[in-house]
Amino acid sequence: MQELKDRIRKDGIVKDGSVLKVDKFLNHQIDAKLLKHIAEEYKRRFEGEEITKILTIEASGIAIAIMVALEFDVPLVFAKKNKTKNIAGSVYTTPVESFTHGTTYDIIVSKDFLKPEDKVLIIDDFLANGKALQGLITLVKAAGAEIVGAGVVIEKGFQPGGDFIRNEMGVRLESLAIVESMTVEGGVVFKE
Amino acid sequence: MQELKDRIRKDGIVKDGSVLKVDKFLNHQIDAKLLKHIAEEYKRRFEGEEITKILTIEASGIAIAIMVALEFDVPLVFAKKNKTKNIAGSVYTTPVESFTHGTTYDIIVSKDFLKPEDKVLIIDDFLANGKALQGLITLVKAAGAEIVGAGVVIEKGFQPGGDFIRNEMGVRLESLAIVESMTVEGGVVFKE
Repeated sequence: MQELKDRIRKDGIVKDGSVLKVDKFLNHQIDAKLLKHIAEEYKRRFEGEEITKILTIEASGIAIAIMVALEFDVPLVFAKKNKTKNIAGSVYTTPVESFTHGTTYDIIVSKDFLKPEDKVLIIDDFLANGKALQGLITLVKAAGAEIVGAGVVIEKGFQPGGDFIRNEMGVRLESLAIVESMTVEGGVVFKE
Repeated sequence: MQELKDRIRKDGIVKDGSVLKVDKFLNHQIDAKLLKHIAEEYKRRFEGEEITKILTIEASGIAIAIMVALEFDVPLVFAKKNKTKNIAGSVYTTPVESFTHGTTYDIIVSKDFLKPEDKVLIIDDFLANGKALQGLITLVKAAGAEIVGAGVVIEKGFQPGGDFIRNEMGVRLESLAIVESMTVEGGVVFKE
């Protein structure tokens, strides 16, 4: 997606060779109009597919996913990272390893909101090692629902997460910008 | 806002007399179209005001706030609840007491995204004791920016948060549904 790649080149900041900061427009300050265009792009890419639900994970995935939900006219469900008092009843849950924070956390979705008849499009902002996305796939499978595909805004193509999900898990994965390499000096090179 | 009140009556669940669960349409599963209508309602209520930025707090505020940001055609900034590796540099921060979780956490916004010239509309899903909203107001004031107002989807009118923000803090607060009282048996009574 050209508009996204242009924006990453303009406003993304590469730190330490492996961290790509996009918090000027994607995950701290957020450009709503860019997200609308991202949602329209997913609508084009998954045209003709039957989708009944969008699934994402808190927090920064939510902004993108709600725009996609509006575009497809279906509900959004977001997985929570820790069980709160306010989720009562039965849940689907699985542990996810976080490289950013060096911890493992549980992700949780109420059984009320993922049903065997659901056809789910999973949306997230970033894909690196792919652990969060794998966790979401696990929840959908636990519910007996169908995974139509996954849409990721930025994929770090030099980390193994994306290929594992495509090849080993057999999930259709649409990344709108795949970073092939990046350096502090040279910036970002996208896979074409 | 009638559509919202109708939806709360239909799908909201009162637990233990003081917990109002709206996770079927507002903060776990989310109805994107309802959120669009909510954003349009804020646009009407703050018509004629100059607004340069929407501010909310992760996680469930984000879905509503990004819709509002799209409606006003300005960026959204969301305060984070814990400092992550990926927020470098200077931040505004303040502690917030959580009654839901019985803990205190810090909320954080990068100084890059709140400037003295900003005119900020704060958006959140719930207002009860008002501590999260007060925290957001503190961050805006720390930045030297102007608070145009605050928009809350559901206010628990029987808790003191809303009146404190209106009367003691002098902030224009627009709540789309104010719960006057609620019981497990009788459901929700709204303030008219």
